[in-house]
Parts: sequence; structure tokens; C-alpha cells
Amino acid sequence: MEINVQQCCEILKEMDDIVILSHRNPDGDTLGSAFALHYILDQLGKRSRVECHDGFPKQYSYLLLDYKPEDFEPKAVVAVDIADEQLFGENLEKYRGKVDLCIDHHGSNKHYAKNWLVRDTAAACCEIIEDICYGFEEAEITKIIADCIYTGVSTDTGCFRYSNTTGHTHAVAGRMFKAGCDFVMINRAMFEVKSFSRIAIEREVLNSLELYFENRCALVCITKEMLERTGAEEAELEGVAAMPREVEGVLVGITLRQRDNGYKISLRSGDEVDASVLCGKLGGGGHRCAAGCFIEGDFETAKKTILKIVGEALEAEE
Amino acid sequence: MEINVQQCCEILKEMDDIVILSHRNPDGDTLGSAFALHYILDQLGKRSRVECHDGFPKQYSYLLLDYKPEDFEPKAVVAVDIADEQLFGENLEKYRGKVDLCIDHHGSNKHYAKNWLVRDTAAACCEIIEDICYGFEEAEITKIIADCIYTGVSTDTGCFRYSNTTGHTHAVAGRMFKAGCDFVMINRAMFEVKSFSRIAIEREVLNSLELYFENRCALVCITKEMLERTGAEEAELEGVAAMPREVEGVLVGITLRQRDNGYKISLRSGDEVDASVLCGKLGGGGHRCAAGCFIEGDFETAKKTILKIVGEALEAEE
Repeated sequence: MEINVQQCCEILKEMDDIVILSHRNPDGDTLGSAFALHYILDQLGKRSRVECHDGFPKQYSYLLLDYKPEDFEPKAVVAVDIADEQLFGENLEKYRGKVDLCIDHHGSNKHYAKNWLVRDTAAACCEIIEDICYGFEEAEITKIIADCIYTGVSTDTGCFRYSNTTGHTHAVAGRMFKAGCDFVMINRAMFEVKSFSRIAIEREVLNSLELYFENRCALVCITKEMLERTGAEEAELEGVAAMPREVEGVLVGITLRQRDNGYKISLRSGDEVDASVLCGKLGGGGHRCAAGCFIEGDFETAKKTILKIVGEALEAEE
Repeated sequence: MEINVQQCCEILKEMDDIVILSHRNPDGDTLGSAFALHYILDQLGKRSRVECHDGFPKQYSYLLLDYKPEDFEPKAVVAVDIADEQLFGENLEKYRGKVDLCIDHHGSNKHYAKNWLVRDTAAACCEIIEDICYGFEEAEITKIIADCIYTGVSTDTGCFRYSNTTGHTHAVAGRMFKAGCDFVMINRAMFEVKSFSRIAIEREVLNSLELYFENRCALVCITKEMLERTGAEEAELEGVAAMPREVEGVLVGITLRQRDNGYKISLRSGDEVDASVLCGKLGGGGHRCAAGCFIEGDFETAKKTILKIVGEALEAEE
């Protein structure tokens, strides 16, 4: 059943011994939402713990500062920022079909829970968690909750840069400032700190940069050899696909990622070109500004194939 | 005389044919403030134009979309975001000692104007300009003014990341959203787009990266040869000094910039080490987290000198 914030609070009030689920490959919003909810429930005198298929990556350790997970047999299951049970991951498979409450901001939410509170105008699930906190007389936005909620809104909006950011997002951030959130530390941890191997792979990616079509298209590649040389891991490649479009004047950025039998293509574009349409021509898909596809064969084949399609689109755009 | 917002509005009401001054090496806040004020004055039916020693760099061209500079003999001079007349630059020297009104957010403001409105709690001068706009019944925050003000607050806070950001800053940003500011375009232009030569110099800087003191110190250099090879200009080096401290675990980042007879040192630090104290030992200075000094001699001499001082500080910090 679809519910509103008030109903959500009433349902939470009836629960105890609650498992809160975050999605696999967790990000700042799913973990921020989960721990904020945990700290809210703690103020209500309820036991809860957060579970995630991949555990809690160390860059998020500041979210756990006041966290004392308790061992109990769950009587209730709440999922936060999870659009689809597919995103639970194997370790949480046991909760499939057993979610009592889902709080989410994805319009694509599959409504797999008994009750769902889905607000797709929210830039981050944490924006909804804030409202839930205000729904309890016994709860308030403590410093640690402010850190959790700020982490969610900041990471899901790329530090207020992505188009999903709203005036409401800024209002939420302003309120978290009042509650003393440590935004300097959080943004440094989320956006500035890079591992040495990440820096090494960025350097390699920049070295591979090529410009095409009067510098309106930039292409980079990530080969297996580069990963071996730098020691960079999969998780350290996040955001690398955005790099080619950072070059001045570039309308389409292409990243070729070497796989066993070909190349995975990531396309990034602005308003001028629809990346999902171009990737669709090669059997892929995605969003208007960020899409992907796969091309079998060697590097030259993959490059030639994707450049042909991008070149045609840029010609049509003129 | 020190004035408040209301007095500032009254003074502006009495003015006409106004020159608005921005500081040399202009940034988003001085230009955002100047053009926002111009568009406000325009709504009041007053002639004004913006002047800057260095003109208006092309990445800020969207601030000028509704700008039609008029040729007139100035009857009044207003300086925005300029703490000191030294920052006028040669082309604006004629206005020294002739500024009627100064609007600024630097606590170090030299009070060189007849009247000054200085609020050092404001993260950006544009925050004060917003209040000035509300002080006029005839003026409102139009879309272009929202773009100007958002540019100021976003750039002066590093997109809401620097410690000068406040809850008020977020509130200002939220109001600019309501007025339709194009924050996606602005943040892309300000923070994401890089010239090809900037990317080339970043690559060179990353290639020069060295780690010291159990990876708690990172050192990079920018040589004349690098600049020649990449074609990067002075203005394209902004923010490069922040790069070494982006490495995970690094407490002090050092950038050595080659000059004719030695090396200019930029030091960046977190809470653990006071960069201004370390640079002070070498005759330089600055802020706690960002300071600078100059060391005469060749690269090895400069490196050895600064590393000795940083090493001692890191040892004391343990």
C-alpha cells in the first residue's frame, strides 16, 4: 500500500527489533538514510540494526560513530533507497518478499514492500528521512543524524551540482548546518580524497585522451593493463567516465572499458545529444545524459564503431 | 562611514551613472556581485556599467546576457568584493580615492570608500547583494540576477564545500533556485569544464607527485618547462595547489612553482597542521589551511627546505 509520511511514522511506531536494509554497492544516500533512521529509532527506544550486502565501506565510517548494532531476531524489515529487491545482493536475499516498509525516492520503485513511501521529487532518500524524523515528537535531528542526512543529499546530488537538486535540497542542507553537521569533513571524504591508485588510474586515463570532430568529442580508455599497472580496483573507477566530457567544448564524452571479449562503452552528453539513443543503436541504453552499451571485438573496432555513431549525431546537431 | 543594508539602498537610490568595480583577476563572486547590482540598478531605471582591470573572462559570459554597457561620464563609483584599492589593477587606478560605496564580505576590508557595507560572516559578497535587492520595492530577483548571485555563492564556497559555507548560504541558493537560476550550467562552467591545456598540466602535475613521511605529505611541482610543453597559462593553474592534499591520508600538500630565482611554495593542510605557521618560518604566511612562501635556489634546495619543516611538524603532531 502506498503511504504518506504520517502513516509511515505510525507504522514505525508499531515496530520493534527492526532490520534496516541498504542496497548493494552502497552509496552515501542508502547508508545515510539507513543510519539516520537507526538513530531516530534509537531515540524512540527501539532496537534496530543496518544490514548491507557489502558491509560499510570505510569512507563512511563517520556515519557509524554512535552505532552499537544489537543482535536480535528481526520482527520487522525496512528497506531504504532500494527500488528493487534485485539490489539487495545475495547476503540479504533472505529478506526478499519480507519487507514491511520501503522508503525510497526512485520513481522506478517496484513496490515490493507491504507498505511504501516513495517520493520521486526528492533528490535523495535522506530528504524523506528528515520528514520522518519531524513526524516523531520524541525524535530530533541530532548531530550524527545531521551528518547522515547531509551525506545523502550531498552525495546523491554530486554536491548540489546535478539537475535533481532542488530548492528543497538546499533547505534540507541548511537545516543540517543548524544541527551542526560536519560538512567540510563529509565533502572532503566524499568528493576530494582519492586513493593513490585512483590518482594513478586518472593519470593513465588522461594520457589516453583523444579528441575528435573538431574537439566536440573526447575519448578515453581503461584497459586491463592500466588496472594492473596502477592497482586500481573496480570501486575506484566511479566517476572516471565523466572525465572526457570535462574537456572544454566537448559535447560527447566516450569511455571504452576493456572486457574479455570487447569493450564496454560509457557515453556522457549534454543537452545537445541524447546518449541513450546513440547507445540504443548498439543494443544498449540508459539516460539522456549518461548511457552505455557493449561492442565486441578489439579496441580499434570498438572505437571506430562508437565514433561513427557519435560523429553522425554531432553532424545532425549542427 | 560604516552603513547597513537599508542605508546602502538609500545611498544607491540617490546615485546615477554608476561605475561598478570588480577586482583584478576576477572570480565568480566579484563579477556575480557586480552584474547582479547592475541588473538591480537597471530595474530602478539607473544607468550603470561594470569595469574590471582584466575584462570579463569568457567562462562568465552568461552573466552578461542582458548586459548593455552604456557610455557615460561616471557620477558615482561602487566597488564590490574588493577589500583593498590595491586590487583595482592599473586600468582602474583612476578610481582610487574616489569610491563612494563599497560592498564587501572581507573582514580585512581597508575602509577606503566613503561608505562601506562589510559583512564578514557572508560566505560571498553576493549574499549581501541579495539583501540589497530586497531593499528596493522596485526590484526583484530576476532569472539573470539569480544566475549572478548563485555564481557568487557557489564559486566562493567551492560549491558549498569550504568551511565558510553557512546555513544562510544554502538558504540563498534555495531562493535562487526559485528564481530559476541555471545551476547545472553554472556549476559545469565553474567546476567541471577544463581547457585541454589545463588537463595537460594536471596530468604533468600528477606525474610529478611524490609521497613523504609515511604518505602523510604529498609534493608536486610546476616547472616552466611544464607550462611551455602544455601551453597552460597562469589563470589555468587555479586550484592546482589543492591537488596533492587530495591523496588519501595526506595531511600536508606541497606545491613547488618554479620562478626565475627559486620556487614559490603553496602549502595546504587540514586541522592537524597549521600551514601559516610553517610558511611563516620561511618568511611567508597565509591561512591555517592554505599558506605560501618563497624559497630561493634550485629545486632540490627548495624541496629539502620545505620538507624539513613539514617533517618536523608532522613528527610533533603524532
